Amino acid sequence: MLRPTGALARLDEVAAWLASWQRTAQPRVTHPAAVVFVADHGVADEGVSAYPSAVTAEMLRALRTGAATAAVMARELGAQLEVVDVGVGDPSANLRVEAALDEARFRRCFAIGRETVAALDADIVVFGEMGIGNTTPAAAVSAGVFGGPAEEWTGRGTGIDDARWAAKVAVIDDALRRLPDGCPPLEVLRQVGGPELVAIAGAVLEARRRSLPVVLDGFVVTAAVAPLEAAAHGALDHCIAGHCSGEPGHRLLLEKLGKPPLLDLGLRLGEGSGALAALPVVGLAAACVNDVATFEEWGL
Amino acid sequence: MLRPTGALARLDEVAAWLASWQRTAQPRVTHPAAVVFVADHGVADEGVSAYPSAVTAEMLRALRTGAATAAVMARELGAQLEVVDVGVGDPSANLRVEAALDEARFRRCFAIGRETVAALDADIVVFGEMGIGNTTPAAAVSAGVFGGPAEEWTGRGTGIDDARWAAKVAVIDDALRRLPDGCPPLEVLRQVGGPELVAIAGAVLEARRRSLPVVLDGFVVTAAVAPLEAAAHGALDHCIAGHCSGEPGHRLLLEKLGKPPLLDLGLRLGEGSGALAALPVVGLAAACVNDVATFEEWGL
Repeated sequence: MLRPTGALARLDEVAAWLASWQRTAQPRVTHPAAVVFVADHGVADEGVSAYPSAVTAEMLRALRTGAATAAVMARELGAQLEVVDVGVGDPSANLRVEAALDEARFRRCFAIGRETVAALDADIVVFGEMGIGNTTPAAAVSAGVFGGPAEEWTGRGTGIDDARWAAKVAVIDDALRRLPDGCPPLEVLRQVGGPELVAIAGAVLEARRRSLPVVLDGFVVTAAVAPLEAAAHGALDHCIAGHCSGEPGHRLLLEKLGKPPLLDLGLRLGEGSGALAALPVVGLAAACVNDVATFEEWGL
Repeated sequence: MLRPTGALARLDEVAAWLASWQRTAQPRVTHPAAVVFVADHGVADEGVSAYPSAVTAEMLRALRTGAATAAVMARELGAQLEVVDVGVGDPSANLRVEAALDEARFRRCFAIGRETVAALDADIVVFGEMGIGNTTPAAAVSAGVFGGPAEEWTGRGTGIDDARWAAKVAVIDDALRRLPDGCPPLEVLRQVGGPELVAIAGAVLEARRRSLPVVLDGFVVTAAVAPLEAAAHGALDHCIAGHCSGEPGHRLLLEKLGKPPLLDLGLRLGEGSGALAALPVVGLAAACVNDVATFEEWGL
């Protein structure tokens, strides 16, 4: 390249990562896809969110008609957008008192994630989520997989006050008490996760099988895939962290996973928005290894 | 917007900043421009760089023919690229021993910067630089404006070893000793700056006059404009920091200027590359305030 070795630092690393998973010396971001999984959560009845569950269905519609933030970002970036309903109006069970998903629903959601990725025509993929109440399962899964007190993993989600935050911590504490010692990571996901989290785990596993690079979004998406890494070290090597969100648990999670984020802008929207914001940076990293002349070509 | 208040955090701030300087409620990044100023430096004779001065002319050619990193990035982003020679083969004087630019050349370079911006048709602009040896004037200007020992402002540039770094510090120390107490910021720039730094200062001043938003690049560009802020507080309000570079002086400079960077990826190439990498993030921020439905439109 016509530049000092290492001058592009993290961009060079991203390009090398992309090249290795795309199995090419000319990595490219020309067919990006964004997949947003949407579901309702029984735990929302505990008052863990500032919004009522009915908002989930509205956001599903807004994502599908292009009026939601992630849809606008995808359009702006020329990314294919798939919005997948895995339980809007059909909430998971209340994870405070019972398994969020029974075995059959867990398998079904996991399979939907895999099938969605199998049907993509993409050279890189971003996963997003929407589901009122879903930072509660994200915190519970994170704590269940990596340990630590619920308080450390619990944030303000869409913007809850102190009282609601304390109630959210209590809900997560109760959920964690239900987990047996040494509970396997994917069983943690079934017990205290949620439908869209399970679908994302399936999707990321399928992406790995297809050597398709993934840009991770925020706290919910990262928590959804953390059980894969806990189950098999290296399982997320095809994923980079697109951003670090404003949810305090996300920073902790990225540290545990050893994934420094590309962006760190305090975003806490979900929908895949943070990963979408990082996508053009990945595209530029690829362009800079493909199209910049080398010192040799330049006669230097 | 169809999202919780503040959920886009820094992106919302960027959109508001852009809107205020573009003087519109619909900020846009549809006509971005990148201007790269290129010059040679007498101080390069002191051996402060890992590369010989002859590389400057080669990089000027590479930028103009589209083979250099910043040119590739600009093409990828659909940004207009202007490459302006302000002294390739016509180095500034050796700032270790005398004023880098005499009064006439200072005025000429400053005017070229202003005229270049005046001729742009752009809604946002990125400034970059190329000039072997130019992290030395950047460190000297920073220390001259904000004080502190030369060591704190001096980095490895294109990748110099310990001995060369120590020599670079000594050169900067000598330069700083030439400055009178209370030397005005723009006189610091003339004494220990360089041609492309002065052009950038002129360009950013003209952008301010035209209310044209600016994304700042790395250490050299930020050092070039620091005298404007030191001379008139608020003079850089139309500028955001595109990134924080791997040069240690840059982080310090951004702190002094109160400008948190959008990206923090360790880049240390110059040419405007860090600001160009941040440009699509600014574009997405703008799209997210323009095209996302509001709760009212959505009937929520």
